[in-house]
Amino acid sequence: MPKAKTHDLLGWRHRLLPAAGYNTLMSKVRVAAFSVSLDGFGAGPRQDLQNPLGVRGPEIFQWFFPTDVFLKMHGQQGGSKGGTTGVDNDMALKSFENVGAWIMGRNMFGPVRGPWPDESWKGWWGEEPPYHVPVFVLTHHARAPLTMKGGTTFYFVTEGPEAALEKAKKAANGKDVRIGGGAATVRQYLAVGLIDELHLAFSPVLLGEGEPLFAGLNLSKLGYTVTQTLPGEKTTHVILKKK
Amino acid sequence: MPKAKTHDLLGWRHRLLPAAGYNTLMSKVRVAAFSVSLDGFGAGPRQDLQNPLGVRGPEIFQWFFPTDVFLKMHGQQGGSKGGTTGVDNDMALKSFENVGAWIMGRNMFGPVRGPWPDESWKGWWGEEPPYHVPVFVLTHHARAPLTMKGGTTFYFVTEGPEAALEKAKKAANGKDVRIGGGAATVRQYLAVGLIDELHLAFSPVLLGEGEPLFAGLNLSKLGYTVTQTLPGEKTTHVILKKK
Repeated sequence: MPKAKTHDLLGWRHRLLPAAGYNTLMSKVRVAAFSVSLDGFGAGPRQDLQNPLGVRGPEIFQWFFPTDVFLKMHGQQGGSKGGTTGVDNDMALKSFENVGAWIMGRNMFGPVRGPWPDESWKGWWGEEPPYHVPVFVLTHHARAPLTMKGGTTFYFVTEGPEAALEKAKKAANGKDVRIGGGAATVRQYLAVGLIDELHLAFSPVLLGEGEPLFAGLNLSKLGYTVTQTLPGEKTTHVILKKK
Repeated sequence: MPKAKTHDLLGWRHRLLPAAGYNTLMSKVRVAAFSVSLDGFGAGPRQDLQNPLGVRGPEIFQWFFPTDVFLKMHGQQGGSKGGTTGVDNDMALKSFENVGAWIMGRNMFGPVRGPWPDESWKGWWGEEPPYHVPVFVLTHHARAPLTMKGGTTFYFVTEGPEAALEKAKKAANGKDVRIGGGAATVRQYLAVGLIDELHLAFSPVLLGEGEPLFAGLNLSKLGYTVTQTLPGEKTTHVILKKK
């Protein structure tokens, strides 16, 4: 029997399965545009209000900040007025495509530790965060959902990463769930094999200290392999997939 | 006063300094063509006679093995007969240029541990090793120098890495000293700030375990920065220099 071509199989699926089922089959749990220093750090040390990405953390994002995608996301003029286009911008764009829900650790949401003193902290991103979908924040401290402008609602999940993923998948309604970070959150999901695909941006920076992505995790044993390397203008994009 | 151009400065030095002094000024201690997995391992685990690079270690050298440089080095037909040319080959070539002496750890020299049972182990490379200059092997166990075909002599140094470097610099006579490896040896020299330049080949492989290059070393604090990233055909070449 001749081997069916991929697009035939997709056509067949598309005809036979109801839309929701089809979408669920194709939806992925993924990490995207996650920047790493050459020595393996996904953020700098000593995160606080002045250093959301940790000390020197922004250096690993130098490929992202000047892109058209980033500038437009923050209401600035992109395109021919200043934002870069090219491989780095294309990869930034892809990282937001088909994302139906986000998951992030509490430190990615903010610098507040321990019980919430009040509801005044609303994330690093101002009144209209750049998510525009439900965002599930992992925390040990319950808090009411927080609806922001532009379609972003932060839900605070105290039942752990697997419960958060279940909620996020449901909310994503067949689209992908993006694990935003930080490094500790990505590691939690990697350790239990729940991430299908990672797009890492290996940036030409040595941080020396910070939040390690790989340390103590055997990604090979966990089933991950490198499927693509794509040199960008200011970083090297690498795709890892789970077998 | 107009700023002198680099080649003028070099010309000036060349005229005023005696040749040996000039050479010594320009000679470097460097690591070159040192392969690293994306998760930071410079070799696989469990090195033995069957696995000189550790289990799965050869995967991080896939960029090097098919090059013209590697094939010719091992007496095989390179060039149009089969060896690749291009960025990876160029970088392999550069790694051997202007090298006057090598230093390597004992495990890079062989799988024998503890006192030498006899003098039968003569390295992994057969009768004519690809060094063609003096090679200083770090070991705790004295052994007479070993002269091989083609200009390679292995000297066994028991007085530690700094003594080995002193001997190697003298032997290199103004050319560069190349720290060959393995990872533990490179780390020893990095920790004391004695390496001027590293050319690392970040290969699209996750080893998950093995000999870590970066773990526990703060290369940034030690003064290293990334000065160049060069995408090769099968790996990404990165140059680190000490400030």
